[in-house]
Amino acid sequence: MMKKLYRFLDLAFIAIISLCSAEVQAQKESVQTSIEKTLAAMTLEEKVGQMAQITLDVIAEGGNRYASSEPLRLNKKELEKALLKYHVGSILNTTNNRARTPEVWNKIIAEIQDIAINKSRMKIPVIYGIDAIHGATYSVGATMFPQQIALAATFNPQHAFETARVTAYETRACGIAWNFSPVLDIGADQRFSRLFENFGEDPYLSSVMGEQMVKGYEGGNIADPHHVASCIKHFLGYSVPRSGKDRTPAYIPYHQLLEYHVPPFRKAIDAGAKTVMINSGLINDIPVHSDKAVVTGLLQQKLGFSGLIVSDWNDIENLMRRDHVAANMKEAIALAVNAGIDMSMIPYQYEEFCDNLVALVKEGKVKQERIDDAVRKIVKLKYELNLFQQPITYIKDYPDYGSAKFARLSYNAAAEAITLLKNEKQILPLKKGAKILVTGPNANSMRPINGGWSYSWQGEKTDEFAKDYNTFFEAIANEFGTQHVQYIPGVSYSKEIEYYKQYKDQFNLIANAVRSSDVVIVCIGENSYTEKPGDLSDLSLSDLQVELVKEVAKGGKPVILILNEGRPRVISKIEHLADVIIQTYLPGNYGGDALADILSGKINPSGKLPYTYPGAPSSLINYYHKPSEAQEKMEGAYNYQSTPESQYPFGFGLSYTTFKYDNLTVDKNVFSINDEINITVDVSNIGKNAGKEVVMLFSSDMVASLTPDIKRLRRFEKIELDKGEKKTVHFKIKAAELGFIGTDGLLKLEPGEFNLQIEKLSRKIRLK
Amino acid sequence: MMKKLYRFLDLAFIAIISLCSAEVQAQKESVQTSIEKTLAAMTLEEKVGQMAQITLDVIAEGGNRYASSEPLRLNKKELEKALLKYHVGSILNTTNNRARTPEVWNKIIAEIQDIAINKSRMKIPVIYGIDAIHGATYSVGATMFPQQIALAATFNPQHAFETARVTAYETRACGIAWNFSPVLDIGADQRFSRLFENFGEDPYLSSVMGEQMVKGYEGGNIADPHHVASCIKHFLGYSVPRSGKDRTPAYIPYHQLLEYHVPPFRKAIDAGAKTVMINSGLINDIPVHSDKAVVTGLLQQKLGFSGLIVSDWNDIENLMRRDHVAANMKEAIALAVNAGIDMSMIPYQYEEFCDNLVALVKEGKVKQERIDDAVRKIVKLKYELNLFQQPITYIKDYPDYGSAKFARLSYNAAAEAITLLKNEKQILPLKKGAKILVTGPNANSMRPINGGWSYSWQGEKTDEFAKDYNTFFEAIANEFGTQHVQYIPGVSYSKEIEYYKQYKDQFNLIANAVRSSDVVIVCIGENSYTEKPGDLSDLSLSDLQVELVKEVAKGGKPVILILNEGRPRVISKIEHLADVIIQTYLPGNYGGDALADILSGKINPSGKLPYTYPGAPSSLINYYHKPSEAQEKMEGAYNYQSTPESQYPFGFGLSYTTFKYDNLTVDKNVFSINDEINITVDVSNIGKNAGKEVVMLFSSDMVASLTPDIKRLRRFEKIELDKGEKKTVHFKIKAAELGFIGTDGLLKLEPGEFNLQIEKLSRKIRLK
Repeated sequence: MMKKLYRFLDLAFIAIISLCSAEVQAQKESVQTSIEKTLAAMTLEEKVGQMAQITLDVIAEGGNRYASSEPLRLNKKELEKALLKYHVGSILNTTNNRARTPEVWNKIIAEIQDIAINKSRMKIPVIYGIDAIHGATYSVGATMFPQQIALAATFNPQHAFETARVTAYETRACGIAWNFSPVLDIGADQRFSRLFENFGEDPYLSSVMGEQMVKGYEGGNIADPHHVASCIKHFLGYSVPRSGKDRTPAYIPYHQLLEYHVPPFRKAIDAGAKTVMINSGLINDIPVHSDKAVVTGLLQQKLGFSGLIVSDWNDIENLMRRDHVAANMKEAIALAVNAGIDMSMIPYQYEEFCDNLVALVKEGKVKQERIDDAVRKIVKLKYELNLFQQPITYIKDYPDYGSAKFARLSYNAAAEAITLLKNEKQILPLKKGAKILVTGPNANSMRPINGGWSYSWQGEKTDEFAKDYNTFFEAIANEFGTQHVQYIPGVSYSKEIEYYKQYKDQFNLIANAVRSSDVVIVCIGENSYTEKPGDLSDLSLSDLQVELVKEVAKGGKPVILILNEGRPRVISKIEHLADVIIQTYLPGNYGGDALADILSGKINPSGKLPYTYPGAPSSLINYYHKPSEAQEKMEGAYNYQSTPESQYPFGFGLSYTTFKYDNLTVDKNVFSINDEINITVDVSNIGKNAGKEVVMLFSSDMVASLTPDIKRLRRFEKIELDKGEKKTVHFKIKAAELGFIGTDGLLKLEPGEFNLQIEKLSRKIRLK
Repeated sequence: MMKKLYRFLDLAFIAIISLCSAEVQAQKESVQTSIEKTLAAMTLEEKVGQMAQITLDVIAEGGNRYASSEPLRLNKKELEKALLKYHVGSILNTTNNRARTPEVWNKIIAEIQDIAINKSRMKIPVIYGIDAIHGATYSVGATMFPQQIALAATFNPQHAFETARVTAYETRACGIAWNFSPVLDIGADQRFSRLFENFGEDPYLSSVMGEQMVKGYEGGNIADPHHVASCIKHFLGYSVPRSGKDRTPAYIPYHQLLEYHVPPFRKAIDAGAKTVMINSGLINDIPVHSDKAVVTGLLQQKLGFSGLIVSDWNDIENLMRRDHVAANMKEAIALAVNAGIDMSMIPYQYEEFCDNLVALVKEGKVKQERIDDAVRKIVKLKYELNLFQQPITYIKDYPDYGSAKFARLSYNAAAEAITLLKNEKQILPLKKGAKILVTGPNANSMRPINGGWSYSWQGEKTDEFAKDYNTFFEAIANEFGTQHVQYIPGVSYSKEIEYYKQYKDQFNLIANAVRSSDVVIVCIGENSYTEKPGDLSDLSLSDLQVELVKEVAKGGKPVILILNEGRPRVISKIEHLADVIIQTYLPGNYGGDALADILSGKINPSGKLPYTYPGAPSSLINYYHKPSEAQEKMEGAYNYQSTPESQYPFGFGLSYTTFKYDNLTVDKNVFSINDEINITVDVSNIGKNAGKEVVMLFSSDMVASLTPDIKRLRRFEKIELDKGEKKTVHFKIKAAELGFIGTDGLLKLEPGEFNLQIEKLSRKIRLK
């Protein structure tokens, strides 16, 4: 142990030494000059190496590139080959798909930077990237927050900001300066396995939340060692493939790309986001990694993004192997680099990438300027992150890592996210002293509470790393007294990585246990997953869980359904069996505590659904659907209406108090396109408890040259009202925000009637 | 009764008299001259009236426009108002959504033509249009054929031709000359309520079948009173809305419109199809009825269609009321007519249409030339149909109407359509003498056997009109002996128009009945429906039917599932409970007989699925999906494959014999783009029965600049082989047929490797 620590300190020392000279040097020159000077001094091979990103397993001790031995140690020979022979500029990920302690991270990264800076000709530090998705995923003891979908449900942008701020801090504590987060795809397809990584279906909500997350990560100054470079992803249209499955083709007209998918990215770019990751899938049959119109035309030219553009995992190879648009790796690399990809997340066969790209430049198939453009952005980012002066940061300088202070932030976010969907017979808040049966596959495991990207890619190692936090059952037992709370699984998830497998587990004990209880809390939903392993073909809740709820309901006791799921699994066959339904999403390590406090009434729930909760598995819809999707009856023979089948609408969520809306005012009836529109509404708490309410402003274009959306969210504000309190909420929007994107990609502001709506109140205005 | 008949004969006589002079006149001039002369003589109001199509209820006796009294009689005043004051040029549909006898049709149409020809200034006959979808839908005693989806399953184009030929004959027997058929939309979304009206998911199969149907309807000469003008529909992209629901937005890139959706229309236009109906829905947020790029640019300019373009039901009004792209009816009319719609299926408020369109022309918002263009096509069609000389045809001249000869054709088509999907333990052919229990909601009703468009729009009047034909139960009882066959419904469909409602019906008798039977035949699927009433949100088979199958399976007897459904309802939860599964689609009035003959082995089944049978309700796919939708494992951490979940593949279907494929040959290895490719394969019947086999040739483009389809059907041939017989099948395709449509809408022929595949044999070729 001592020996290891020494070696670690040695390396750190070496790194620090080397930095001092770099610092002096940097002070002499402006960053821009340094970059150009660096670029001018680099060979083609050195430049191409900067564009290569490899996964840590490649340079770790182990049998092969795909797996490493434990404990994690770097393979010096492989490390030197990658960094010195191939000049690899970036590394990502952990080994063996496992969280590591900050100390291990520090040691590993110090070793890497030592080679990069002290052994290489150009002395360019490596940029280390990681998926720290809801907290520092791969860092033992880091603060796990609610996933993005839950942050969206808070409708409180502060939680997005704090989540990112803490994650940046804890990621930097490990010595890592680049985070592949946030996800700014709109969660418009409820089947998508990464819905939970999105901010829900609404472009505006996603924009507001995403902006705060970028600000939280980057803090306006990524040289600051408490911040990281963010990576907004996945540009563009990743989340809505036709099949609903990860990395399959999406079909999106250009105007819809701009109308729904671009806004969160635009806002994040305007907020200074440093890097972008490209959609691993395809739009309109073109893999986005080969689509110059998207990667260069739209992202860089139209949206003005000038930062680093990185591929997703293996996605240059995928142009050949998966999508069949390139006959070989060389063609694939040319396509992607010429489309505008600056860095390839290769992640294994970097020699092939580097050798081919060097050859392509020599053959004139990739221009030298394209390489220089890419490397300039990479080197610039390393300067901006101050990696030349401070290539590594150390846990010792981060006393708040995993602190109670951070834990409180996570708890607060979870408490504001959890959404009360049904509360009949005033079952909630639950009285103390009642005999409670807790059951269901989600009742007593930290894995589903955290979801994917928790201590491992699929989250399957969560119960190993997060055993000190409270599961739903544990938190409920703490809150209501262990003597009153009994747990029987009924159904359990398989421990295997096939997240969806389930089996009956003491199912036969359920009936008796219900009989001897006063109330039953059934925790259902999904196990953890992400990406392709999370693909599904049936959005309905699993048959076994439906059976469990039916079995419980037979007992005639009040039934509380706790939903714990990355996406809204259809519950229409059991919804009527429950008196209470609570959506917890994936609330993170303090989600159990937050839930228990909501059940007992310590917290008045204020979360709102950030998506439309579907009512059936074969027909999905968003709240901003088209008029034809909610067709009214025609006169005459064709008198069939069409009502979208949804369980709960977007923005839905109950409270333990009652809010009343009055006096919706708009400052004028007729507006010009340059006008501002001022809207006010009074909100009163007429119930018996203090509570928080999300006030949402929607607009509808009554007639437009493209069939308009039924309505669109334009503003929201979360307010807190004491019992009996009234507040007036002001919204200000530009008339131009009522416009839409035409097929030419330009904003259309067509004169005519619009409807403004807050809760059930509405006002018609005209745009002239 | 005598009085009525007299009046009918009177009218017929009047019509005949009036025609004689018209005939003489016509002989003097060429048709073209006549048309121009007619046009020149018409007022604006008369022209606009020609563009108006109303539904029969509007001019029938009854309380209002939306319903009529029985028996059907015309309201002379309303008729004269429509035809004489508003110059309405076309009428469609029946009254009260009810089939009529040919005699009633003759009488009604004679009355209409009498007014149009003898009372109007211009003496232009009305063109009467009808939905005769799988036989003459609204004609009592007509021959009902299998629906298009079943015709497609025969893979025998002759059945499409004969179905159309007989339908034309029987439609003309009623005096009707225009049929709104065939449907040439590709059935690529298994949820779509009109899937059964399509020829399945494949563009090539749809093209071949559609061409034959147009030829069957039109016979190369629509003046011939045994033929009708066809109406190919619904141009374009109707069948693949994102929501899966009728008349909701589809999102289809231009190259996919051309690649998948255009080919059947192109082939039908080349075959001379006289009229086109426009898609009632929207593509890329533009209602197709207002989309000049589609209606004029693509249909007329690019595809060269010069015939009549008719709207779908109410779809000009829908631009305003449903899709919100027009602020009022006047705007809606201008949009549609300027887009290229020639005739509006209004169908009720024709005054509004006519008055507004006249005003629009006077205001210069619709050009006179556009009106002349539309009316020229309408008048020309009436000339081509010889309506000026023969405005009505009579049942007396159609001795084969509803004949045994036609019935045989319908039976033959059904017998070749029915598809054997599973046959374990050699249960089929079923031995005579076994005790058979027949159960299920589809077992003893003609309604689901025929589906929608049978005697009424939704098919709900079928059991009233088709009681002389055999249900599944009746046919099985006939074939196996009534003493051996017992029927218990178990589950029944509601008699209401809500087709999907079901209830338990003697369910409690099932267990005992199974016990006393040797084999159980469970007839499940769907009740009849079409269009919006057929929308669904869950593609799974209904819970009650699943329960019925499970109840039956408990008995341990062999279970034969008979599927009878317009679209493939997901059966994955019960598939394993059945030993035999047979898909009957919607086989028409002789479907019961054909099924019984297959069960007994008189017919060796040869139908093949014309679609991919899905295995789950939330993720649908076609056989020509993209490579990314069947993703293979990657090396390393991301080792998740993605296999599309389907129950049975496109083209699947078993036989009572076994076919063996050998010796796939291709005449060359390398082809130029102008080459023909000659392919042969040997097919042998190595089983114990004579049988028919569909030989299918697929091609795959191994690399393309747009991600290529996994494979595409290029040719098929249905052959018949005696036991022990061998045939060599020849296919010839142009190399150009291996190309694909690029994003610019042009055919791309990229050099490289292609794979040709027949059954499990394949050959690689190169295009240079």
